[in-house]
Amino acid sequence: MESTVKAVNGCIFEIMDYRSDGFSEYWIEDKDGVDFEVLKNIPESTTRWINIDGGCPQSTLECLSKTFRIHPLVTEDIANNVQRAKIEDYDDYLYIVSKMIYYMEDELIIEHISFILGWNYVISFGELKGDVFTSIRDRIRNQNTLIRKSGADYLMYSLLDAIVDGYFEVLEVLGERIDKVEEDVLQVSSTETLHEIREVKNSLMYIHKYIWPLREVTSWMGKDSTELIRPATELYIRDVYDHIIQIIDTTETYRELLAGLIDLNLSSVSFRLNEVMKVLTIISTLFIPLTFIAGVYGMNFRYMPEIDWKYGYYATWVIMVVIAVSMIIFFKKKKWF
Amino acid sequence: MESTVKAVNGCIFEIMDYRSDGFSEYWIEDKDGVDFEVLKNIPESTTRWINIDGGCPQSTLECLSKTFRIHPLVTEDIANNVQRAKIEDYDDYLYIVSKMIYYMEDELIIEHISFILGWNYVISFGELKGDVFTSIRDRIRNQNTLIRKSGADYLMYSLLDAIVDGYFEVLEVLGERIDKVEEDVLQVSSTETLHEIREVKNSLMYIHKYIWPLREVTSWMGKDSTELIRPATELYIRDVYDHIIQIIDTTETYRELLAGLIDLNLSSVSFRLNEVMKVLTIISTLFIPLTFIAGVYGMNFRYMPEIDWKYGYYATWVIMVVIAVSMIIFFKKKKWF
Amino acid sequence: MESTVKAVNGCIFEIMDYRSDGFSEYWIEDKDGVDFEVLKNIPESTTRWINIDGGCPQSTLECLSKTFRIHPLVTEDIANNVQRAKIEDYDDYLYIVSKMIYYMEDELIIEHISFILGWNYVISFGELKGDVFTSIRDRIRNQNTLIRKSGADYLMYSLLDAIVDGYFEVLEVLGERIDKVEEDVLQVSSTETLHEIREVKNSLMYIHKYIWPLREVTSWMGKDSTELIRPATELYIRDVYDHIIQIIDTTETYRELLAGLIDLNLSSVSFRLNEVMKVLTIISTLFIPLTFIAGVYGMNFRYMPEIDWKYGYYATWVIMVVIAVSMIIFFKKKKWF
Amino acid sequence: MESTVKAVNGCIFEIMDYRSDGFSEYWIEDKDGVDFEVLKNIPESTTRWINIDGGCPQSTLECLSKTFRIHPLVTEDIANNVQRAKIEDYDDYLYIVSKMIYYMEDELIIEHISFILGWNYVISFGELKGDVFTSIRDRIRNQNTLIRKSGADYLMYSLLDAIVDGYFEVLEVLGERIDKVEEDVLQVSSTETLHEIREVKNSLMYIHKYIWPLREVTSWMGKDSTELIRPATELYIRDVYDHIIQIIDTTETYRELLAGLIDLNLSSVSFRLNEVMKVLTIISTLFIPLTFIAGVYGMNFRYMPEIDWKYGYYATWVIMVVIAVSMIIFFKKKKWF
Amino acid sequence: MESTVKAVNGCIFEIMDYRSDGFSEYWIEDKDGVDFEVLKNIPESTTRWINIDGGCPQSTLECLSKTFRIHPLVTEDIANNVQRAKIEDYDDYLYIVSKMIYYMEDELIIEHISFILGWNYVISFGELKGDVFTSIRDRIRNQNTLIRKSGADYLMYSLLDAIVDGYFEVLEVLGERIDKVEEDVLQVSSTETLHEIREVKNSLMYIHKYIWPLREVTSWMGKDSTELIRPATELYIRDVYDHIIQIIDTTETYRELLAGLIDLNLSSVSFRLNEVMKVLTIISTLFIPLTFIAGVYGMNFRYMPEIDWKYGYYATWVIMVVIAVSMIIFFKKKKWF
Repeated sequence: MESTVKAVNGCIFEIMDYRSDGFSEYWIEDKDGVDFEVLKNIPESTTRWINIDGGCPQSTLECLSKTFRIHPLVTEDIANNVQRAKIEDYDDYLYIVSKMIYYMEDELIIEHISFILGWNYVISFGELKGDVFTSIRDRIRNQNTLIRKSGADYLMYSLLDAIVDGYFEVLEVLGERIDKVEEDVLQVSSTETLHEIREVKNSLMYIHKYIWPLREVTSWMGKDSTELIRPATELYIRDVYDHIIQIIDTTETYRELLAGLIDLNLSSVSFRLNEVMKVLTIISTLFIPLTFIAGVYGMNFRYMPEIDWKYGYYATWVIMVVIAVSMIIFFKKKKWF
Repeated sequence: MESTVKAVNGCIFEIMDYRSDGFSEYWIEDKDGVDFEVLKNIPESTTRWINIDGGCPQSTLECLSKTFRIHPLVTEDIANNVQRAKIEDYDDYLYIVSKMIYYMEDELIIEHISFILGWNYVISFGELKGDVFTSIRDRIRNQNTLIRKSGADYLMYSLLDAIVDGYFEVLEVLGERIDKVEEDVLQVSSTETLHEIREVKNSLMYIHKYIWPLREVTSWMGKDSTELIRPATELYIRDVYDHIIQIIDTTETYRELLAGLIDLNLSSVSFRLNEVMKVLTIISTLFIPLTFIAGVYGMNFRYMPEIDWKYGYYATWVIMVVIAVSMIIFFKKKKWF
Repeated sequence: MESTVKAVNGCIFEIMDYRSDGFSEYWIEDKDGVDFEVLKNIPESTTRWINIDGGCPQSTLECLSKTFRIHPLVTEDIANNVQRAKIEDYDDYLYIVSKMIYYMEDELIIEHISFILGWNYVISFGELKGDVFTSIRDRIRNQNTLIRKSGADYLMYSLLDAIVDGYFEVLEVLGERIDKVEEDVLQVSSTETLHEIREVKNSLMYIHKYIWPLREVTSWMGKDSTELIRPATELYIRDVYDHIIQIIDTTETYRELLAGLIDLNLSSVSFRLNEVMKVLTIISTLFIPLTFIAGVYGMNFRYMPEIDWKYGYYATWVIMVVIAVSMIIFFKKKKWF
Repeated sequence: MESTVKAVNGCIFEIMDYRSDGFSEYWIEDKDGVDFEVLKNIPESTTRWINIDGGCPQSTLECLSKTFRIHPLVTEDIANNVQRAKIEDYDDYLYIVSKMIYYMEDELIIEHISFILGWNYVISFGELKGDVFTSIRDRIRNQNTLIRKSGADYLMYSLLDAIVDGYFEVLEVLGERIDKVEEDVLQVSSTETLHEIREVKNSLMYIHKYIWPLREVTSWMGKDSTELIRPATELYIRDVYDHIIQIIDTTETYRELLAGLIDLNLSSVSFRLNEVMKVLTIISTLFIPLTFIAGVYGMNFRYMPEIDWKYGYYATWVIMVVIAVSMIIFFKKKKWF
Repeated sequence: MESTVKAVNGCIFEIMDYRSDGFSEYWIEDKDGVDFEVLKNIPESTTRWINIDGGCPQSTLECLSKTFRIHPLVTEDIANNVQRAKIEDYDDYLYIVSKMIYYMEDELIIEHISFILGWNYVISFGELKGDVFTSIRDRIRNQNTLIRKSGADYLMYSLLDAIVDGYFEVLEVLGERIDKVEEDVLQVSSTETLHEIREVKNSLMYIHKYIWPLREVTSWMGKDSTELIRPATELYIRDVYDHIIQIIDTTETYRELLAGLIDLNLSSVSFRLNEVMKVLTIISTLFIPLTFIAGVYGMNFRYMPEIDWKYGYYATWVIMVVIAVSMIIFFKKKKWF
């Protein structure tokens, strides 16, 4: 069973304690009556990661906040999922907010996630039950990984890196959809193409909106602004910053490509329609003068010399063919079809 | 009776005095001959909130200004409702201007509001008779709220927070209207859709216009710029600042969504119209050659061999059907309908 | 007679000397042979305002410049009316350039105006004979106004304030024109609407262009940059700065509104035209199959059984009515009209 | 003969030496074997202007560079005419690059020009044989001009000023072309109008592109950045800077005007076309029902009561006229034409 | 055989050692078991350039990194080809990333390239087997070139300069394609023109995207930020910076030109189509009233006086010609064709 999709009705605390020579992993359910002091009590030279998925009741949140001496405004913000990515420095801990984007069962999930980074612990608050941190759990379980040898700040970096990698994966899927749209536009463009373009465009808009403030967050973290992040880790944070810049770059490129495709789609739809209308109009225009001629000799005047002429009928046909052919030649010469 | 919609012809001063262990609430009417010195005379460790709704005569304003030693330029500005949000620091007091947005009886009200924040008082000047401060009054009336334990700066924060929350509520309504417009555009788009889009677009424009300068105001207030705001309150002000950034973000997202809907509306209107015109033109084009043939055999030439031929009429029908069917097949093959 | 529209062929110097307890007002004509030294000779604790309207000959300008020790580049600039708003600090005096906008006889006048602000004098050089300073003259003539108690810097503020107020008045007129255009667009939009939109749009463009650099000018003046402007006056200058920001804001709002109206106009013109074309095409399409049927029975084939049938004519009418009605029902069902 | 259009195959050095009490003017041809040391040898209190038009061979350029101790990179840059305007400070001399724009025989010439400004000399390298410096030569030849009393820095200012004045002249011509285009758009707009708009638009784009970096160049020169330019001259340089800002302003205004004209052109072309199509369609629509009626009574049914009725023909005419008139009234009422 | 297209399956190290009085050039294949210590061991006053084309296995990269004491993050980045241009300062060496653009066999190649610049060595990691460095190799092989007399920093400059020159060459090709597109648009514009415009537009977008961050890289390198680059070389780096600014300028000019061409293409396509439709509609409109008249006299009423009139037929012809001619005159007068 995959640990990341566990059902957490009663708000489960997923806890991983690790140091270079060992690790332990256990779950505490909220309804058991959590002893928050135990949570706070972290053994020496150990890093603790407390992960809380799927939201938890306000009361639990407040107890936890009191235990870790977290400001009431932060507690309020954790429960508020319209927050944009930001970082706040409360000396003893950092409060970091971000959006996590990933695909679950072919659906794009946008999840609000908050972190508290202390000296030897990280608390992560997820909105839903899934996340993108499976590989981090695996690396903690392995003896010789860098994460086991590093502290809470490196864990924080790993979490942010996993989130940013999630954006890359979503962008890859969008890139493929743009390629497909491009093919469609050039061959058969229908209203579905339009809707697909619109969906991809909106997804890109949201990705851009969510990644943009993360830029400032990582820029701040990589700039020696706090003692909670060691200089050695700052180098890694700057790498995350570079990745974010690449994501912003790519979304902008994709948006330009899409804008081009929207224009191309409009032109090619209208081009094709105009071609149809032109051909139809040419057909009508060809027959209208001929119908007129037929109409003339359908008149019932008593004195119409052509009517009685023996070859009148054939001559009329000849005239009509001549007119039709001249018109076709004229249209061809004018390159009208 | 709701206190916020009281009729204030003679300019009523709504006064709330409170400290942690008590509060009093009373109204002074302008026509009574207000003793302004009493207004200024605030008991020790008490915070006074003077709220003046619905505009008041210039003379009263000037008396008030003299009592509280407010600069004549400020007095002038209070009466001028085209001001944009701003803050001015006069050492002894701050002058803050903002726009308040709320719905009253399904109509969007944009109200100009000014504040004077002194050491132990806040004076608020509303343009109309309604406001968004009911919850603040309730919190003052309750014993154990944070507002009762805090000073004038926290009251100022609460007022700004209530104003910004008003923006969120209006945005929520606009968000629902955008959702409805989207449905309309995809199903039946008429001129009403166009007008609805335009109205929402203009509302967003105004919200953006009014909230934008408030950003600078709260940024200044949260940055240790004045002693009138205590550091503990600055943290709360910065929270308001974050909310304002979120509102700006949301208006921008909504505007992008609307721009997409306007384009989609245009395309889908023109797409549907073009389909109609194409079908109509195809019908005409089908019958014009047939009418020509009928015209030919309606000619009265004496010598027309087909006329006398026994199966001429049936043959003509056959030819016409063949022509019509070939055209239909041709159009189908070309995917013209 | 209004003093501001006096004919000034020979370049009249309009001079107002004032101090808190008196004022004098007189005119010197250029052709009299101006004694420039007298101009320079200002009595103690008196402020002198020299106003020169309608341009004056280069030679007079040069004499004046020499008297007041003005740099030749400034003298050159005064005569050059393509200058944008700017301020130049020459220690002993400030050189300020601006555009004045007002309506005279329903026509929008854009006038170039320059100022020299010295310690106890202001010289203003207008391009045309009208100006927006009438109210300032009245305030100087009255004993108890603030302007009489203040110095040259406050006069300078009053002149700039009057100029900026002129922009507000023009914007108000434009606002009314936009309201009228909006009504026109929704009811009857013609080419005149298009021209009206274009005119308002260009006016807004010019206002924006002229007011924009004035922002920097007043910002500089309000920032303690020069001793020529006292701190007390700087407060007033900052008020002018706020007004300028409001004007810029309003022009931007108006431009967005206009852009919306242009789009709406285009859509509603094309919508109405398309409706007309659709109805016309539907009428044609209804009759073309009927005409074909009539054509068929107009053919002269000898052997046409229907022709000799007694009820053929009536049957044909029935068929034609059935076809027409089915088509109408079909079109109605498809919501084509 | 005009000195500025002299043929310079062999690369002619046009030299002007001047001081307040005299000047000399002579030409050295490259093929004579130039003694570069003489060029460098400038008499005391004399300013030398060496002008080299129409490009000169790389070898000459290198000799010159060695004589005046110019950095090889500069020598390379002088020969490279895709450079944008810039200034480089090499302590002993400044290297300034610009674009010169002027009309020669109704054709817009864009010429690359470089300057070396030393303590007592200016070297100018023109790409072509014409320039905009005639008035400067005249002022050097006159005894009492400011240029004769000033040094190399003032000469440099004069050269830049002449270049910037050239931009103004070109803008004036473009302004007139825009006025003409506006008239055309409102009266008869054809494809030529479109091409004219495009040409003016591209010219404005190039002017904007070339003048923009010159802004930074003059801003740097006017800011006390180098001892090669005296404070007194800096004032003049700042005047050139102001002119450049005006040119940028004007190009932006022109571009906005043109954008408006492009939209107006599109609308008025499509408006006129639509009017034509509507009238044509109305004519067709009027006659199609009438033709149908004529068709009905052209049928050859044996039993058609109306046919034998004495007034059938006249009645039919009456019906047809009634139908036509009702349709016209209907169309008029709907304001379709 | 051209050295730059050598097949490098086993990852070949192409090494050039040079000093002012000699140079050596040799290749080491990875499979030989590279002695990395030898690579690091650079003779005194010698500059070593190690070029690795076509990617190399991760293990080799790691050995190399250990030898030259390169940070693991850099080693990771070298293998990651979605990096944008950047520079990182690791005190002992600089890590520089860029994109190289060139044409190989008429195809546009975008190659990711990384550099390590140490005190006396440069290591370059190319993604593919081709590069733009042939001229640099030639200059190293020649005795008297500046590169032979300079150190690793000048080599680094030469490499960047060659990359930037590659952009110029690609831009030149794109410039020619834009010229061709312009001709096409004015003469025959088809869907191919549209695709060509789109391709050029996308190429420009990518060039802009890749060159933009290189601006910051060279700006940093030219600003005395590191001791690894000598002041004399900084001057050359700043020259590269100027070239990059020119490339950005040119791409922006090209993009504006293309935007103009896209609009022109749309207008001219729609203009031509509209002309066709108008002519076709005019032809139809001319014949429809005439057909109606013919229809009238094709009716079979027994009592039609005109039918029996001797000149009825000719009179009808006259009427029809008069109608046709009046319509043509009317259309001509209205300038409809």
